[in-house]
Amino acid sequence: MEQFSNNFREIGATTYLSPIPTVMLGCADPQNDIKPNLITIAWAGIVCSKPPMLSVSIQKSRHSHGIISSTGEFTLNLVGQELGKAMDFCGVRSGRDVDKFEALGLTAIPAPKLSAAPAVAQAPAFLSCRVKQIIELGSHDLFLADILQVSVADRYFQENGSIDEEAMNLLSFVHGKYRKVGSEFGFFGYSVASPEALARRQGK
Amino acid sequence: MEQFSNNFREIGATTYLSPIPTVMLGCADPQNDIKPNLITIAWAGIVCSKPPMLSVSIQKSRHSHGIISSTGEFTLNLVGQELGKAMDFCGVRSGRDVDKFEALGLTAIPAPKLSAAPAVAQAPAFLSCRVKQIIELGSHDLFLADILQVSVADRYFQENGSIDEEAMNLLSFVHGKYRKVGSEFGFFGYSVASPEALARRQGK
Repeated sequence: MEQFSNNFREIGATTYLSPIPTVMLGCADPQNDIKPNLITIAWAGIVCSKPPMLSVSIQKSRHSHGIISSTGEFTLNLVGQELGKAMDFCGVRSGRDVDKFEALGLTAIPAPKLSAAPAVAQAPAFLSCRVKQIIELGSHDLFLADILQVSVADRYFQENGSIDEEAMNLLSFVHGKYRKVGSEFGFFGYSVASPEALARRQGK
Repeated sequence: MEQFSNNFREIGATTYLSPIPTVMLGCADPQNDIKPNLITIAWAGIVCSKPPMLSVSIQKSRHSHGIISSTGEFTLNLVGQELGKAMDFCGVRSGRDVDKFEALGLTAIPAPKLSAAPAVAQAPAFLSCRVKQIIELGSHDLFLADILQVSVADRYFQENGSIDEEAMNLLSFVHGKYRKVGSEFGFFGYSVASPEALARRQGK
């Protein structure tokens, strides 16, 4: 067994899970006069199917941390190549200093099921989320949230009603870099699917 | 604002965060005579930078749930196209019925910092993880874990010491499908980088 171990190099205890999402979180707190803001999130993941839940992790010092701690709601906006530069900008500039929607020419729209958190009109899709629990972990607090609704831009629906995610030109995050997400490699269960099922899926 | 909202269709409360990882979790419990096992995990994400932590969510009924609840350790093995079919298989077959390492011709190797959980010798990289907390959410339990070490296969190191993640041909998970992760779109901070920094990065 050791011969294989020797073929690896240890690079230290680091956040190397790859690929991971890189999305824009939308929030606002109009009751406290805090305008719509966006922050880039790569520390995010699905955590439960029933109920549908996800997590995002945010540093306490971030402007958005205070907003969603107070309002308990946010949107997660998927990011394709068209929004890539805006997404990067939202990760390195603070909403305390700049109105990111205005600076980036993005449009804040209401999100289904939420009262304050805006979605990004230009996003290919977004999830409406409500915070259920906050857990302190260290540099980041973990927000566990229910997914209340998912909205997908009209232009990605195909005639048969399915969604063309390939056309979204999504971006992923891999060790400090954004990488393009492209063509389909397979579908869940394809390795054990019957020839009939494979033919049906490939015909789609 | 409404004109934009009307350009979205609501598809319900579903786990649509995209792209997300699709990796193989390795575990074993030799003290209880349970052989090395692999399970595919898409419900995973980074949750903290300091300390470096990640989460995985697993249904209580799964074989691996019992193993890592008992041993408190696992590996997460990154998955490229070469391992795609094996990864899919590990998500639809149970380790109670089949020895997945054997069935798939994969090699279990020891993982740094762990005593029992195996890594996959053929993986491009793997993370050694120790469970810190388990939170019941519904269909899935959330395992919060420290990342203890990261091991990257020798063949992905370039002469300058950097890692060529593009060569890993990683796969992502998007709404029931595996999608290829490809070329670099940008690096964290590129939208505000100086011309000098941009030139330096592009020269790499």
